[in-house]
Amino acid sequence: MRKGILIIISGFSGAGKGTIVKELIKNKDFCLSISATTRGAREGEEEGVHYYFIERNQFEQMISTGELIEWASYCDNYYGTPRKYVEDMLNNGRDVILEIEMQGALQIKNQYPDSLLVFVTAPTAKDIKQRLINRGTETLDIIKKRLEKSFTEIDAIDDYDYIVVNDGLNDSVSQIKAIIIAEHERVARNKDIKIRLKKEFEELLKGDN
Amino acid sequence: MRKGILIIISGFSGAGKGTIVKELIKNKDFCLSISATTRGAREGEEEGVHYYFIERNQFEQMISTGELIEWASYCDNYYGTPRKYVEDMLNNGRDVILEIEMQGALQIKNQYPDSLLVFVTAPTAKDIKQRLINRGTETLDIIKKRLEKSFTEIDAIDDYDYIVVNDGLNDSVSQIKAIIIAEHERVARNKDIKIRLKKEFEELLKGDN
Repeated sequence: MRKGILIIISGFSGAGKGTIVKELIKNKDFCLSISATTRGAREGEEEGVHYYFIERNQFEQMISTGELIEWASYCDNYYGTPRKYVEDMLNNGRDVILEIEMQGALQIKNQYPDSLLVFVTAPTAKDIKQRLINRGTETLDIIKKRLEKSFTEIDAIDDYDYIVVNDGLNDSVSQIKAIIIAEHERVARNKDIKIRLKKEFEELLKGDN
Repeated sequence: MRKGILIIISGFSGAGKGTIVKELIKNKDFCLSISATTRGAREGEEEGVHYYFIERNQFEQMISTGELIEWASYCDNYYGTPRKYVEDMLNNGRDVILEIEMQGALQIKNQYPDSLLVFVTAPTAKDIKQRLINRGTETLDIIKKRLEKSFTEIDAIDDYDYIVVNDGLNDSVSQIKAIIIAEHERVARNKDIKIRLKKEFEELLKGDN
């Protein structure tokens, strides 16, 4: 059976990757990996939809038993990706989408070299700033900090496989879908086909003699 | 301006690549590179559509002046790919399709490392044999020779980027279109975006101070 691909989507905050991911999983063509966190649920956040909300000691146990494929601590809370769901889905041939920041993405690429890294950006740095301002949820000071963080991370784009310039939701979603279709056809992911064909040709030519 | 991609399509004879290529270029989304040859035109073959039919001494001159990106001699005739058309189209941002056998494909990959190599196969070796028989244009002896040639070339599939299992014209055409869309988004083909964003962020953050 065809194996699923682990698709990691990162991007500058303000690039619109959340909306893209929501659109990608709408028709259940792809599974979405849900993170575990020790922080409390915010209003509107649902268990198993936005996060798995778990206790600190449980999270630390998951770290020590290797049940997370990546984790980080941020503002005194843990965030991480449970391994079981991701591997179960991949083994079932399902493509799994993971929306995650760059550091976690590169941790995963080391463990799962076959994973597919997609970086999403707005067309220009100005657009990114404007989108953060338009959100209206953050002070200019925090926005500046986010832009500074984006700037320090920029060189890590080179470690990604694809870069999608988000100049419109539909185009970006189609592009990412095309990327996933294409990746399934990569020779590196289909070594079994060549091996099978070789055997078949051998049999066929033997039979002809 | 976005640069075009040189797309090289190869495949076992009987895999159906000719039909796929015809379908791909139907809407002029892609340019088709036409080979030059010294053999005479067969019935129904048109100059500039199927081949450029040229004289032997002209072909040899093109070889010596580097006007061909690859060439081979087969059954006492020369076949080759004129460089000018390919490069003009790529520089104009057009994607160029080249249907060519494996040896020529690998020659081109050496000269144009950015070119995209797609290998087309029928689902099984038996299908390939059956399609050659169904064509009804070749004796069983020649079919056997073709199958033997396919068998010797099989390992070169590893040098290709993508393998498309042709189990239906429409699916194969959509897959190759997805591959081309995806390839345009590869980080390796878009180094300028990161460089530009880096500069823009720098300016933006400077302006904020």
